[in-house]
Amino acid sequence: MRKIKLILTYEGAHFSGYELQPGKKTIRGELENALHKLFKTPLKTISASRTDAGVHALAQVVGFQLNNSIPTPKIASALNSCLPDGIKVVKAEEVGEDFHARYGAKSKEYEYLIYNGDIMPPFYEKLAWQMKYKLDLVAMRKAANILKGKHDFKSFCASRSDDKDFVRTMYLISIRKRKIRIWNGQDVSVISIRVKGNGFLYKMVRNMVGTLAEVGLGRTSLKDVRQILSGKDRKLAGRTAPADGLCLLKV
Amino acid sequence: MRKIKLILTYEGAHFSGYELQPGKKTIRGELENALHKLFKTPLKTISASRTDAGVHALAQVVGFQLNNSIPTPKIASALNSCLPDGIKVVKAEEVGEDFHARYGAKSKEYEYLIYNGDIMPPFYEKLAWQMKYKLDLVAMRKAANILKGKHDFKSFCASRSDDKDFVRTMYLISIRKRKIRIWNGQDVSVISIRVKGNGFLYKMVRNMVGTLAEVGLGRTSLKDVRQILSGKDRKLAGRTAPADGLCLLKV
Repeated sequence: MRKIKLILTYEGAHFSGYELQPGKKTIRGELENALHKLFKTPLKTISASRTDAGVHALAQVVGFQLNNSIPTPKIASALNSCLPDGIKVVKAEEVGEDFHARYGAKSKEYEYLIYNGDIMPPFYEKLAWQMKYKLDLVAMRKAANILKGKHDFKSFCASRSDDKDFVRTMYLISIRKRKIRIWNGQDVSVISIRVKGNGFLYKMVRNMVGTLAEVGLGRTSLKDVRQILSGKDRKLAGRTAPADGLCLLKV
Repeated sequence: MRKIKLILTYEGAHFSGYELQPGKKTIRGELENALHKLFKTPLKTISASRTDAGVHALAQVVGFQLNNSIPTPKIASALNSCLPDGIKVVKAEEVGEDFHARYGAKSKEYEYLIYNGDIMPPFYEKLAWQMKYKLDLVAMRKAANILKGKHDFKSFCASRSDDKDFVRTMYLISIRKRKIRIWNGQDVSVISIRVKGNGFLYKMVRNMVGTLAEVGLGRTSLKDVRQILSGKDRKLAGRTAPADGLCLLKV
């Protein structure tokens, strides 16, 4: 029995999220279908992160056990030929028996893109959150500093969650303007929020981004942010930012 | 009666091309629906280019006559609130009576993106043509030089065309590698082919790109390219490149 680690990238708009859901097209479902087709036997996979519907990934980590002698360098292209549009295996490697995609993940990094302007280029509709009113980045950075470090993030955890321990450590929360570019001559300015932590609660990044955006709009003060964090109550925090703008960068 | 010029941007994958087609979702159809909704009367529009299904635009030019006193600066946002996902009006301005979006266009510039590698990031599936075998850019640039200038481009005109005069002038055909970027840390290298000319025949850019790609693969020689051009016969040229990679940059 071999243990295989995959790096997956996907465009979240095509799928109903990562986790299996009966009757829905999910990333895990499509991956396990492709594995079944390729190896003629059902295989179970474990992912580092269970991204929500609409959330993208540059480098999701997935592990599975394999009883087949296919050379490791051939796994990625063989799987890619069985996968639908929207998902690609970037890399496959054989790992030790003690590898666990979820419990072995030491940190995760996400990026959230906000298009802060009137006319959002249609190429980015599924990749960024459009906010028309100008956001105050200085205030948002101050609020981000409050959230940085080790805290009980219960206020930023969606209620549907079955988490019990709400303490997580945020190593990095950076907010900066940068350019994204597809077509020649069209550099589009976006606000990039990067968050790196030792783990994340259900919908935590989107809830944090939602609150930071409220701060950027001047609707939530820094004092409010401190109270939201210390209150440990989801009802205190701001809205949940839409899934489109979020991407799992790396694990 | 006022004459209004619009600059439109759209993601071609959402539509069955620019021109009206019964029972299909087209860019012109959606724009004229939005105009009808906004101004309570059917309005006819004329575009600089009739892009094919799947082809994108950064700055399509569209003109129409309007018998309504709406202030010009309000037209773009009013129309955008009536348009579906995938199309945006970037700008509206009032122009002179002699303005004609199609016959007034002095030149058009297109860009075509090729992803030349094994694993195409899913974010670019509808925005670039994937070619797995390495393309020889030096040979492609030499072939582009043959096509540059004033020629009869009948060999590059799709047969369904009702064009009669096949002479066009290509001011620029540039082929270079550049980076496209959406997510932090993922700079994707693509081959960008930019073509600027005084006009284009039906499917001409895609037919030129198809032939240039054959040259890049070593399947078509520079001598062949000269023969294709002088032969004035569509059957001589290579395949038509897919629509996904093509974008009308400006008029």
